[in-house]
Amino acid sequence: MRSVYVLRIGHRPERDQRVTTHVGLAARALGADGMFLAADDAGVVGSINDVTARWGGNFLARDNVSWRRCIGEWKQKGGTVVHLTMYGQRMTDVIDEIRAKEKVLVIVGAEKVPGDIYGMADYNVSVTTQPHSEISSLALFLDRLFMGAELMREYPDAKIRILPRKAGKKTVEK
Amino acid sequence: MRSVYVLRIGHRPERDQRVTTHVGLAARALGADGMFLAADDAGVVGSINDVTARWGGNFLARDNVSWRRCIGEWKQKGGTVVHLTMYGQRMTDVIDEIRAKEKVLVIVGAEKVPGDIYGMADYNVSVTTQPHSEISSLALFLDRLFMGAELMREYPDAKIRILPRKAGKKTVEK
Repeated sequence: MRSVYVLRIGHRPERDQRVTTHVGLAARALGADGMFLAADDAGVVGSINDVTARWGGNFLARDNVSWRRCIGEWKQKGGTVVHLTMYGQRMTDVIDEIRAKEKVLVIVGAEKVPGDIYGMADYNVSVTTQPHSEISSLALFLDRLFMGAELMREYPDAKIRILPRKAGKKTVEK
Repeated sequence: MRSVYVLRIGHRPERDQRVTTHVGLAARALGADGMFLAADDAGVVGSINDVTARWGGNFLARDNVSWRRCIGEWKQKGGTVVHLTMYGQRMTDVIDEIRAKEKVLVIVGAEKVPGDIYGMADYNVSVTTQPHSEISSLALFLDRLFMGAELMREYPDAKIRILPRKAGKKTVEK
């Protein structure tokens, strides 16, 4: 079983709360197993955990993680470290190689990323070579990694589920 | 030539500035032609225009748009209106039908969306039936609409371009 975690760095509690929450929710909904947050922000972790409690699954959200230690430990356990950056290699050129790995840590930064990250990562990966968003980059990376299967994922333990429909809202609560 | 615009609704200037800027930048980088913002926020429009000026292309960003009039005019011109919502039909079920349309307006909301939108849209589309982010939803929708071709897009008029590389940053300025 492949394990995929996201490491969110460069988060500033005031400014990035909503964007980092979106990073975590996108990670969860698109098949990642958890998010490590390299900052002290219990609010973000709480928001993500609330979603997981209602919508199901075992997504791990943890703050106060040292990014340097997290990357070091991941590599020590034989894991692969992927840094999403618009300066990296084209995703389409390396995704097949990355898909063959058992354990993938995906680093997503905010605006500034410590220069060391480029050297510590096994892969620096660019989704478009254009500036957009760490959320859209992460979404497209996970989609290519899981080859679209993540879109059909079901959560058997969910307390709430959506019944897709043409208009309006229909949910089932357990 | 297909034309695809994004209509961003529910934006609150204080809270959503960064998320809406990411919506606009993702729209641009992933092949949309412009974003209409149903709010008064020149700052967001300015940030997006700054990116377009440096990185190329003709992406249109406009604020102070009435969402009701925008949708009405789009439909009057024979355009198709797609509302991204986790409550809608599965994207995988309707994307081929939508891809055949000439003019597509993609509505992305913030947390609350006026109930009318569901009835006004030709398609209410859900990317995963899970809560995540309007940015990741938009990214995956545009990716499926353009079938991945958007990832390879080049901007001949760009003042700055990235040369993809394994580590570090390499740009070319014109």
